[in-house]
Amino acid sequence: MKKPLILVVNDDGISAPGIRKLISIMHDFGEVVVVAPEGPQSGMGHAITINATLRCDKVTIDDGEQTEYAVSGTPVDCVKLAVNQILDRKPNLCVSGINHGSNSSINVIYSGTMSAAVEGALEGIPSIGFSLLDFSHDADFSEGEKYIRKITQSVLEYGLPEGVCLNVNIPKTKENKKIKGIKVCRQAKANWEEEFDERKDPNGRTYYWLTGKFVNYDKGDDTDERALENHFVSLVPVQYDITAHHAISILNNRF
Amino acid sequence: MKKPLILVVNDDGISAPGIRKLISIMHDFGEVVVVAPEGPQSGMGHAITINATLRCDKVTIDDGEQTEYAVSGTPVDCVKLAVNQILDRKPNLCVSGINHGSNSSINVIYSGTMSAAVEGALEGIPSIGFSLLDFSHDADFSEGEKYIRKITQSVLEYGLPEGVCLNVNIPKTKENKKIKGIKVCRQAKANWEEEFDERKDPNGRTYYWLTGKFVNYDKGDDTDERALENHFVSLVPVQYDITAHHAISILNNRF
Repeated sequence: MKKPLILVVNDDGISAPGIRKLISIMHDFGEVVVVAPEGPQSGMGHAITINATLRCDKVTIDDGEQTEYAVSGTPVDCVKLAVNQILDRKPNLCVSGINHGSNSSINVIYSGTMSAAVEGALEGIPSIGFSLLDFSHDADFSEGEKYIRKITQSVLEYGLPEGVCLNVNIPKTKENKKIKGIKVCRQAKANWEEEFDERKDPNGRTYYWLTGKFVNYDKGDDTDERALENHFVSLVPVQYDITAHHAISILNNRF
Repeated sequence: MKKPLILVVNDDGISAPGIRKLISIMHDFGEVVVVAPEGPQSGMGHAITINATLRCDKVTIDDGEQTEYAVSGTPVDCVKLAVNQILDRKPNLCVSGINHGSNSSINVIYSGTMSAAVEGALEGIPSIGFSLLDFSHDADFSEGEKYIRKITQSVLEYGLPEGVCLNVNIPKTKENKKIKGIKVCRQAKANWEEEFDERKDPNGRTYYWLTGKFVNYDKGDDTDERALENHFVSLVPVQYDITAHHAISILNNRF
């Protein structure tokens, strides 16, 4: 029997420590092909490149057995290129990450990491996005590893419901705060309160940096934010059907 | 009483005929402020600008009474800048479009037009994305106008359920094929079958253009695709909670 084919993608760029760790883990599960952005693509959401050309070059980053391609476009472009141009069979699994930083709650809709997983699901591939709640380049990806292995094993074995991918966030480990396990959750109702940092360029013209503060409005016990606060790995099933089905009957009475 | 404050945004750029038409319609409903990308941002999905600076300049495009700002970033950046930096009160309505081309079914997740509306909903603003099924620059936006007016009036009067915005698509009118009315729908299950157009640059290096064919797998009578085929305006309520709630109990048994 052929080994499972595993597509690895991310949004921090093909050289980021998070994806290098994920590649090394995936070698134990199957044949690994990496198709990832050549540089950082954080916050790209479900963007695709339609008004510009795409480059996709075979590269060698380390001495691992994977095949790798660096793409000039977005994480979603990477999945589309992999499935339609690079691979000769459909992957058995698509994993995205490990993202440097949280993709919990509302971050899921801004995240290139998670959009790549959603795109994988759209292509009918069981797909998982992994993120670690640590932005630093030298973040410690080791304690989450056993949970990544457990979730990967389960998805390869049992698949996922149609149209659903997984958003997995791993808490940052501190001394005396070990990860307690996995919680299946819903996306917390939270938002960013933006503040724009207004500056002047050397010519006196105004420009802005987007900054903001994350605010969780959700007091529910079944949210990803709560799980992470309590030092669990959060696992949220995510879908690409974004119809607000509950609102259909309300609106039917108006139109 | 103050006139309603209406924020207008799009993804085709501030000079596109679609947004100019939408601005002219909105003058009948309130005070209009336009914050839109300086150039085309189609396919940007929910992308935000976090690794680069943003420009936001006051501009005059025509002799209408609106105030206008052209932004160097994405449609979602425009909404964030409008709400947090430009406007001194929360808008009563956010309208996005009129998009040149369809944002029905799966297009909703790639669409900058719809992501701007979703961002409006996140900010607690009743928000609507309007799209016309005609890509051409000189598309005829006139027959859809009465439906845009009807939907706008309703949303200003009754609001929208919390966390929900509207994805409105308008069929292209042909001779003997007038619009029949509005149908409240769900997002059809459809997808793009991509084909990458592979070319060589003048230096012999390979590059790609993303192209594809839209395929509707959904035979349901309650989808946006069906409504549009039958020459109705489709209206899909859209939400930013993308949790696949139905999958939670399935996954709970596995982890």
